[in-house]
Formats: sequence, structure tokens, C-alpha cells
Amino acid sequence: MDTLENNATTNSRVHTYANGAPDHDRMDCIAVEAPLELWLGGKPATVLMRTPGHDEELVQGFLFSEGIITCKEDIVSTQRPQDLTGPQKGNVLKVLLRALHSLQGVDRMFYSNASCGVCGKKTIASLEVRGPVSESTLKVKRRVLAGLPRALKEAQPTFAKTGGVHASALVSMEGEVVAVREDVGRHNALDKLIGWALNAGKIPLSDYLLLVSGRVSYEIVQKAVSASLPMIAAVGAPSSLAVELAERFNLTLVGFLRADALNVYANGERVVE
Amino acid sequence: MDTLENNATTNSRVHTYANGAPDHDRMDCIAVEAPLELWLGGKPATVLMRTPGHDEELVQGFLFSEGIITCKEDIVSTQRPQDLTGPQKGNVLKVLLRALHSLQGVDRMFYSNASCGVCGKKTIASLEVRGPVSESTLKVKRRVLAGLPRALKEAQPTFAKTGGVHASALVSMEGEVVAVREDVGRHNALDKLIGWALNAGKIPLSDYLLLVSGRVSYEIVQKAVSASLPMIAAVGAPSSLAVELAERFNLTLVGFLRADALNVYANGERVVE
Repeated sequence: MDTLENNATTNSRVHTYANGAPDHDRMDCIAVEAPLELWLGGKPATVLMRTPGHDEELVQGFLFSEGIITCKEDIVSTQRPQDLTGPQKGNVLKVLLRALHSLQGVDRMFYSNASCGVCGKKTIASLEVRGPVSESTLKVKRRVLAGLPRALKEAQPTFAKTGGVHASALVSMEGEVVAVREDVGRHNALDKLIGWALNAGKIPLSDYLLLVSGRVSYEIVQKAVSASLPMIAAVGAPSSLAVELAERFNLTLVGFLRADALNVYANGERVVE
Repeated sequence: MDTLENNATTNSRVHTYANGAPDHDRMDCIAVEAPLELWLGGKPATVLMRTPGHDEELVQGFLFSEGIITCKEDIVSTQRPQDLTGPQKGNVLKVLLRALHSLQGVDRMFYSNASCGVCGKKTIASLEVRGPVSESTLKVKRRVLAGLPRALKEAQPTFAKTGGVHASALVSMEGEVVAVREDVGRHNALDKLIGWALNAGKIPLSDYLLLVSGRVSYEIVQKAVSASLPMIAAVGAPSSLAVELAERFNLTLVGFLRADALNVYANGERVVE
């Protein structure tokens, strides 16, 4: 649904020093980081610093997880201007929202909210997470969880090339990786995934678990809550706020997920033998 | 200079599954993530989602790297209200800036900028990095660089306990770690370090290199430029924009730093045998 997947990586000349080998110049594949200027209501609303590719999904997921849209029909059209040059080329997306009510508060939100779910907010009160407390009866077997680090690795083409991006994956209770998205930003990878799910008509995601390649902090849980995900399994560590939010919204939170070990930080009843 | 270092970690009950051992409940040490509400000119300006500790340095470094202050004297006073309860307790910092000119544009900046140096900005043009092109004659020996991953590991007490925070360290050309700061946010760890340097009268940091535990993206280079750092050495991967900015501002950029190998992505003349 987008045209830029091939722009996710670029080549850079590097000088490599390695013990036991002569130092040498070579080409290294690195992850692209580029700003996406998002227009709403005919004017610039925010900039998302992202890895190009799946831009429309990124914007859909971002608008959904920020509460600006509640279904994909709230977006009437998405336009990528073709007449741009310089740094804007390929990096501007103009979105037309359906109803005036969708635009109410957009200015306020984008002045005071932003892409990572934290930055730009002005008060602690504005960080309040709203969303359903999960009532999902999902159960995931421990042996399914044990297989996920490997499954994620195999589903990360950009990481394999660059070592420089995070991934978010949607996984069924049987351990099938249904969709995976990568980005230099953890929050972007998740927004892309949520955008994909929105398009696929899969939200609420109460029958799936979210698998992330890195750590879990506030904004990851906040976005998971917005999409009604009942479980997060992470290769990395959770933060204190992630644990608190997972407890409050009845999400199962698994951290330090390995083939041979895992930690359950909240609501372990969904992890079964 | 602050009172919260001991609040950087907390204990959380986890249920651990590990092959070859019975699963069991235990206490796990996790990194604290909590919002810091920053007030400027008598009203809330922004929220920094950070690991408590070195809060004053964080705010000083943030204001400096965002261009709102240019020296430590621009801050007249920093006050931590003692009468707060709930989530605000210990998490509000009120800063009085010296001159009215320092306040000019603060509203604009905080509406449109934010803690990570990207989020909340509304146009690609607003991401323009301003700062000096480095003229530093710093040279660092390859064997000094080779010792840095180990030195950083030994200087990361919170990471050792939690596995959940990033670190930024200031390193001399002889490889001495002069200061190190940790945080759940990479940009915060660097802002804390810059705040420390500002207090220590060490800016411009033209005789030091910046060592970071993770990846290098736009906002890390942007902040390094603001403090006149001539070299960044990272354990992780750089992004494309990090390489571009390093080239433009004449910073040396080293990535994938290991005891036995490293990649130089920009301005390798500062790396010597």
C-alpha cells in the first residue's frame, strides 16, 4: 500500500578496523532515518522521524493511537505531493479527515502531543492513558513464546541488513507472525503495525499478542491499549511505568523473552503450559 | 546536585520461567520511567519522560541543546515544589530564566519542539540543525577506542541492575570516562551529560568524545553538535541522518564499537593508530 519500502536502507562508505584483518573501506548498509511531514486540515501538523516505507500505515496507526481517528473511514484521502524537491521530496503526506469533529482538537493535540506518545506534552495529567481494560481470554503456551525470538529475527529483513531498526510484530496465539513492521523508532514500528491492522479490519486486536524487539516503555503500552492488545512480549526490559500500565489495563507483560527463559511482569494467567 | 539518584530503579515481582529450573516468583530490579513536568515562566512548558535522578542536569542540558539557554547563568533558579502529591510528587521542576530574551520563543519552541529533539516539530524545515562545524584537532588512538565498550559497561550501574537503560559518557582522548549518565531515553542520558558539562564549565566539549551505549540517530548528533563534541563512538548502529549530520558538522562518527572491531562512518582522520 505504499511505494517506499525500498527506501528503508541506504549504503554508506565505512572504514572498518577489525583485529586480525587489514583495515579497509567497504560499503555498509544502514537504516534510513528521514522526517515525514504530516499535513492535516491543509497545514503541517507534525513531523514523524521514521524509516521510509509503510508511510500511510504509520500515519493511520499514529492518528488512531493518538485518538484522532477511531476507524479507517475517518480518513477520506491520503495524498503524497509529487512536485516537491529537496528534503521534502517523498517525505510529505497530506491527510484529509472525514468530519469536522475529527479535526476538533487536532491543533491542540499536535501542539501538545507527538509521535512518541510523550514528547511535546506539557503536563503530567496529559499523559493519562485512556482505553479499555482488556477482557481478552487469550492464552498463549510457553513453548509458543519460546519460539518467538527466532520467528521475529527471521521476520526482520531491515534489521538483518543494518542492525539499526526495531520491530513490532502481531502474533496469533499459535505463534504465527501475522504482520511485522520495522522502523528506527520503536513507537513508529508499532504505529505502522496498528495502521496495518486498521486497514485489515482486525482492530480490536484482542486475539493477538504484540511482539517487540526492544524494550517496553510507556508509549508502547499506551499504543497497545489503544488497539486492545491483551499481551506484550518483549525481547528487552520493561520500564516501571510499562509494568504499572500493564497492570492497570489488564495486559500481560512478558520481558527478556528468550528461547529458554522469560519473565512475566503482569497478568501471568494468559501464559500457560 | 539532585536528590533522586536513588529513585532510578524499583523492584517488581516477576514470575520467571527458565529451562532446567522450576518456574518461580522473585523480585526483579527494573528501571524507573516517570514524567518530569518542566515549568518555565510560571507555567508548564513540557514533559520529559525520564529516569529520575540528575533532574536538574537533564533540564539544563535539554534547555541548552534546544538553544533556549546558552550558559548556566541563563538559569536564575530551579525549584522543586515540596507540596505536591500523587504523580506530580518529585516530578515537577520550576525554572526561572534570567532574561526576557531567553523566554522569547519558548512557547513556540515548546509547542513545536520537544525533549527528543524531533517530536512535536511541525515541519521538516524546523528540524534544521544549527551549530558550529567542528574544528577540533582531537585525535583518539584505536586502542583507546577498543577499551571503551568495557569502560562503559563498568560505568553503568543502573544498566547492570536492570538491563533497561541507555548511557552517555564523556571520554577524554586518553580514554578516561570523565562522566556518565543513564536514562530510559537515549536523548535524556545525553542531555543529563550536557547539563553536567555545562555546570562543570566544560562546554565547548571540543577535547572530548561522546560514547553512547546504543544507536546514533538525528537527535544524538544534533545534541552533540550543540555541545561542540567532535566525535561520537557508539556501540550500536548509526542512522542515515546521523551520518549525514556528522559529515556536515565535521564530527567523527564511529559505530558498532567492539573491543576488536569498529566502523568509521564519517571523518576518520581523528582515529589514529
